[in-house]
Amino acid sequence: MVPGGSESLAPCRRLELNRWGRFDAMTECASRCTPKRPRAPLPTAPHRLHRSPVSPATTGETPGRSGARAAGSQRPSTCVPETAGGARLASSIMSPRNPETNAEMRERSRAKLVEAADDLFSERGYDATSLSAITAEAGLSHGLARYYFDAKADVLAEVIGPRLDASLDVIDGAPGDPDVALATIIDVTLEAAESAPAPQALVLASMLQPGPHDVFAEFEQQHESRLRAAEDRLRSIFAARGASDPVAEEILFRSTLEGIVFKICVYPETFPVAAARRRLHERYGLPDPEPWPGETPDAQTPTPRLRATPRHQP
Amino acid sequence: MVPGGSESLAPCRRLELNRWGRFDAMTECASRCTPKRPRAPLPTAPHRLHRSPVSPATTGETPGRSGARAAGSQRPSTCVPETAGGARLASSIMSPRNPETNAEMRERSRAKLVEAADDLFSERGYDATSLSAITAEAGLSHGLARYYFDAKADVLAEVIGPRLDASLDVIDGAPGDPDVALATIIDVTLEAAESAPAPQALVLASMLQPGPHDVFAEFEQQHESRLRAAEDRLRSIFAARGASDPVAEEILFRSTLEGIVFKICVYPETFPVAAARRRLHERYGLPDPEPWPGETPDAQTPTPRLRATPRHQP
Repeated sequence: MVPGGSESLAPCRRLELNRWGRFDAMTECASRCTPKRPRAPLPTAPHRLHRSPVSPATTGETPGRSGARAAGSQRPSTCVPETAGGARLASSIMSPRNPETNAEMRERSRAKLVEAADDLFSERGYDATSLSAITAEAGLSHGLARYYFDAKADVLAEVIGPRLDASLDVIDGAPGDPDVALATIIDVTLEAAESAPAPQALVLASMLQPGPHDVFAEFEQQHESRLRAAEDRLRSIFAARGASDPVAEEILFRSTLEGIVFKICVYPETFPVAAARRRLHERYGLPDPEPWPGETPDAQTPTPRLRATPRHQP
Repeated sequence: MVPGGSESLAPCRRLELNRWGRFDAMTECASRCTPKRPRAPLPTAPHRLHRSPVSPATTGETPGRSGARAAGSQRPSTCVPETAGGARLASSIMSPRNPETNAEMRERSRAKLVEAADDLFSERGYDATSLSAITAEAGLSHGLARYYFDAKADVLAEVIGPRLDASLDVIDGAPGDPDVALATIIDVTLEAAESAPAPQALVLASMLQPGPHDVFAEFEQQHESRLRAAEDRLRSIFAARGASDPVAEEILFRSTLEGIVFKICVYPETFPVAAARRRLHERYGLPDPEPWPGETPDAQTPTPRLRATPRHQP
């Protein structure tokens, strides 16, 4: 419904971005906006991978990717449908808005895009999803999407960055006792994979695929000190447990855990998480763990055959 | 060079497919051929996944995918460049050719397509590679590519099928002694991944991604008895070595091995294969293995940090 009346919409006319940065009006506008004239490149901002998927916008920071926004990129102007009551509508939209409200609106649009991308990447795969499809799924205009993200790779960084971050949090936040720490790292990792295999599959596939691999490599570069701390934490856990070669042990442990996560993603229907987890605890000489959700402690391990199930994606 | 003379080429004219099935002449023709009129659908053939990547063509079997060729699909007609000596050229091409020669030419074209697809999938990713790009890379006409493959997924099946087959061969072909068998399976698998991480990464990524996952699932369906035999072989190895739960052991072993292969693919520059392999042999109580190529037996394990390297793919 058109604010200010039930007048029919005509193609919109463009307003310059005002000092309150009110480009969010564009999200309400289904018209075919095109830039009026070239404008100066946007100021740059640190890469979004440093932040949570839906980063706090109260800073009022201008979105953009690590200084990489191409020269000539344009800030979308606000646009207002030209209605019979156009003046009234424009006046209503141009009235000053609280900066926090602006920031919230920006953040909402950005979050919508990331959420839509997350869904589509998991459903179709990264390369099979276009930036246009993401903006359409989010119900936003393509221009606004380009305001937030220069390229699809930037959206992927926002989707997988927080998950990679979370996997480091698991190691950072594990309890002090080496045995308890190891058991916690195993259980939290397997629980995350079992409860949401599709997002996890997207992360693993991104690490392997040529284009997305660079997004992953960029994450690692930006988080060097955290990665180092996580590795050292694991090594110290194995050293405290008497490993003769804590470095080799750390690498083999992470490979094993990632291998199980990989198989959960490929075989979400048939992989016996509870049995694999129990055997893993046993292998590392950990105390007998509490039963896994749904696990019957005295039951014999069934004879599962890992088999992939066609997903018949579009 | 034009056979039969140095005459300049004019746009080609089309010949009907003759009784020797001489459509291979098209591979030599860079002209813009389009079908003249709809022709009957091709006879179907069993899915190619059953065979090696470059399957023997001496059967003279007509290519096609598991009965799925769409109605109205067309067999490309031969086409001959129209030259000043056109009659001579046409006559030369129309002369009867040995059926074995025809089969060889078909097989060569097919192999070219699969090879080109393999390169492009590894270099750009599956979803980022079109069937047109594959045919262009192979230097063939698009029409001919469609003769062999209905869809890109069929080409992927030809690329990854033999590698999945080979991984089952490793288990089938392992020696009789349980310890030697286990050591062989570990070493052959790691050697394959280390020597060619990109093709292996394509296989793993295909298992994870929504579209390609179905190609993988189809492979598993078609190879059910081989999969079952490989699982049973591994379980019998662990049973013979005294495992209390050979099923859980088999699943954990495969997960560990796949996890190491995954990490080799993600970190081909930094993953310490020799150290991980030595630790794996140790973990399974196997005799001290021969040094890995390049491994210095008495050297301390270095302190590798697994770090991804950007590949800057197009």
